[in-house]
Amino acid sequence: MNIAVAQSGGPTCAINASLVGVFKQALQTSTIDAVFGAKNGIEGIINDELIDLKRVIKTNEDMELLRQTPSTVLGSCRRKLPSIEDEDAPKVYTNIFNCLDKHRIEAFFYIGGNDSMDTVQKLSEYAVKIGSQIKFVGIPKTIDNDLPITDHTPGFGSAAKYVNATVQEIIRDSSVYSIDSVTIIEIMGRHAGWLAASTCVLRANDEIAPHLIYLPESRFSTERFLEDLRIERAKHKAVIIAVSEGIELEGSEAHIDTIDAFGHSNLSGVGKALEQLVRDKIGGKVRSIELNVMQRCSSHICSKTDIDEAELIGGEAVKAALRGETGVTMVFRRISDKPYVVTIESAPTNLLANKEKLFPTKWINENGNGVSDEAIKYFLPLIQGEVNIAMKNGMPTHFKV
Amino acid sequence: MNIAVAQSGGPTCAINASLVGVFKQALQTSTIDAVFGAKNGIEGIINDELIDLKRVIKTNEDMELLRQTPSTVLGSCRRKLPSIEDEDAPKVYTNIFNCLDKHRIEAFFYIGGNDSMDTVQKLSEYAVKIGSQIKFVGIPKTIDNDLPITDHTPGFGSAAKYVNATVQEIIRDSSVYSIDSVTIIEIMGRHAGWLAASTCVLRANDEIAPHLIYLPESRFSTERFLEDLRIERAKHKAVIIAVSEGIELEGSEAHIDTIDAFGHSNLSGVGKALEQLVRDKIGGKVRSIELNVMQRCSSHICSKTDIDEAELIGGEAVKAALRGETGVTMVFRRISDKPYVVTIESAPTNLLANKEKLFPTKWINENGNGVSDEAIKYFLPLIQGEVNIAMKNGMPTHFKV
Repeated sequence: MNIAVAQSGGPTCAINASLVGVFKQALQTSTIDAVFGAKNGIEGIINDELIDLKRVIKTNEDMELLRQTPSTVLGSCRRKLPSIEDEDAPKVYTNIFNCLDKHRIEAFFYIGGNDSMDTVQKLSEYAVKIGSQIKFVGIPKTIDNDLPITDHTPGFGSAAKYVNATVQEIIRDSSVYSIDSVTIIEIMGRHAGWLAASTCVLRANDEIAPHLIYLPESRFSTERFLEDLRIERAKHKAVIIAVSEGIELEGSEAHIDTIDAFGHSNLSGVGKALEQLVRDKIGGKVRSIELNVMQRCSSHICSKTDIDEAELIGGEAVKAALRGETGVTMVFRRISDKPYVVTIESAPTNLLANKEKLFPTKWINENGNGVSDEAIKYFLPLIQGEVNIAMKNGMPTHFKV
Repeated sequence: MNIAVAQSGGPTCAINASLVGVFKQALQTSTIDAVFGAKNGIEGIINDELIDLKRVIKTNEDMELLRQTPSTVLGSCRRKLPSIEDEDAPKVYTNIFNCLDKHRIEAFFYIGGNDSMDTVQKLSEYAVKIGSQIKFVGIPKTIDNDLPITDHTPGFGSAAKYVNATVQEIIRDSSVYSIDSVTIIEIMGRHAGWLAASTCVLRANDEIAPHLIYLPESRFSTERFLEDLRIERAKHKAVIIAVSEGIELEGSEAHIDTIDAFGHSNLSGVGKALEQLVRDKIGGKVRSIELNVMQRCSSHICSKTDIDEAELIGGEAVKAALRGETGVTMVFRRISDKPYVVTIESAPTNLLANKEKLFPTKWINENGNGVSDEAIKYFLPLIQGEVNIAMKNGMPTHFKV
């Protein structure tokens, strides 16, 4: 039998590690012959653009480099498949199953977030409809950590490690001058504030900042924000604020730009908007910093726990397909925080597809401007360990096809 | 005798390493008793706010942590001293020399950029005027690399290492989708484009991008920029552009915000302005990314060569003062690129104070949109080596007073 794997949605530091996990497990399985990689997610199946991965990943060193390479080596897409009941469904699904059949592909692995799980769900349903025996298994990834069922998602730990190392450095940077200042750090997270919330871990290293943390899970009030800030300014010379890009400013939707194929608003500029607000209403030195795509691609400071887990969950997906499972997504179940123990299980994909897991309100403080210490125990294990990054000419080495 | 040291200007990853260099050399010098650190640069001398460094830096481990801590542990300032001929000069200079005399300080070391060298120059001149024997020695630092006489400046190598590791990651991040895109990366550099120019080193690792590099040293033409971009879009799916914050857009000075105490324009928004221009005139997917203060504070990926050199030049400054030198600044002289050999010498501070060294036009291509391969040899040695960063709870450990 042959298998195929594809990557979908926004890049992370861990998607290629999951690909390595699928690939390594396939190498160890005598019944699996070819491992195909589909270019640009499901589009590569629709267009019959497959790469024989054994021809490009040739050595153990290649696998090591791929593990430390951010983004998706196979490319990605944001293609949403039509509902299998839709009028135009047959054409695209026929293309997909023709391609899979043509290459004797008996299992397809899709590494992605909640939108990509929608694809896994539809493909597994369509297979049942047409009586195909092909297995479809989802492998989670997203820096947003917003998938239900799973304790956390591959890619999130590395993003959180980068964010916290960087916020700590910005805290140092903000402390240099004798004048009062406000620094607003805008962190990714459309609807779920996990990544901004993770900055609470800095307290484990005796940082007091960020002094204020605002998440989309808590209604944002401009008036209360200014009041919060006045209180913190009275206590600290350099006030640091962590804010999710997804908070909704009252009476101003200027930061909502466009709507993508999945109906998401592409938000931007909350940091800049708050910066202007502070300048207008309070004054003084104020700046905003957007951590931008560096949050999802800074593999040079990835979390070893995250990368190792991403590889493991990829391997477990192959085992699940070999057991005959389909329409499932692999998930982490946390057994304990300390020592940190997780198991990997499969769950019905329809429990994850198109669904979002928000940051728990039980961990948000009463004033909606901070995160409780309880959350630190959840986050800390995910950012532990450093990958020994292979360097060339003083820069990380990336794997390229 | 006692000595004092202070840090001034914008933060870098290497200023604390130079402080360690001064401190270690003082420990090894039997004639030096106390080493005072002045809070917030020269302001700490004016206001008599000194810290006995032996009371805060107690162990070898403290020194190691301080070396890996970004920003200025003593704080910084942007205070410009009056000309020694000015009417109000006596008051501030009297304060300074009173403080130095009171604490029996016989040598003062100022770690900073071209503005801080102005302070060293004036203090050494004032000492001559009043017959003081106190020695004033400058220790260079700036991520801008824009000081004359010295081959390069401490802080620059670490900034360049961060910028290039990050640009390489952004190149991967930009390559995922099948649609054409333009990514504009705004890099620090008001008048000197060294840091943006350094992205040419990615070619040593077989990267073709950045496809276009724009520096303040070359006149920027909007029309030519759009033409350059059209040519690159025909060749590459994901076009990457590195641009210095200091390029001047024709007919639009909307990105010039304020003027600081030294008369510098605080530029911002060149990346955003170009993003809008491309959207208006060419269309398609376009984004801009500002590397912001992360360029000057991302110690987690500092250059070992930079940090080691920053410590060494701090130590050499102490030796110069002990030899009786004053009104001098320590500089690097490069003996060879490969093997990389530099010596440390002193130069009259007036050759550096308030002066800028621009990126050589001989290394800018004819079209003003790229940097020649010759420059790679200059930049590469500066980003070599990694500091083994001490971690705690998965995050770098910082030294705090």
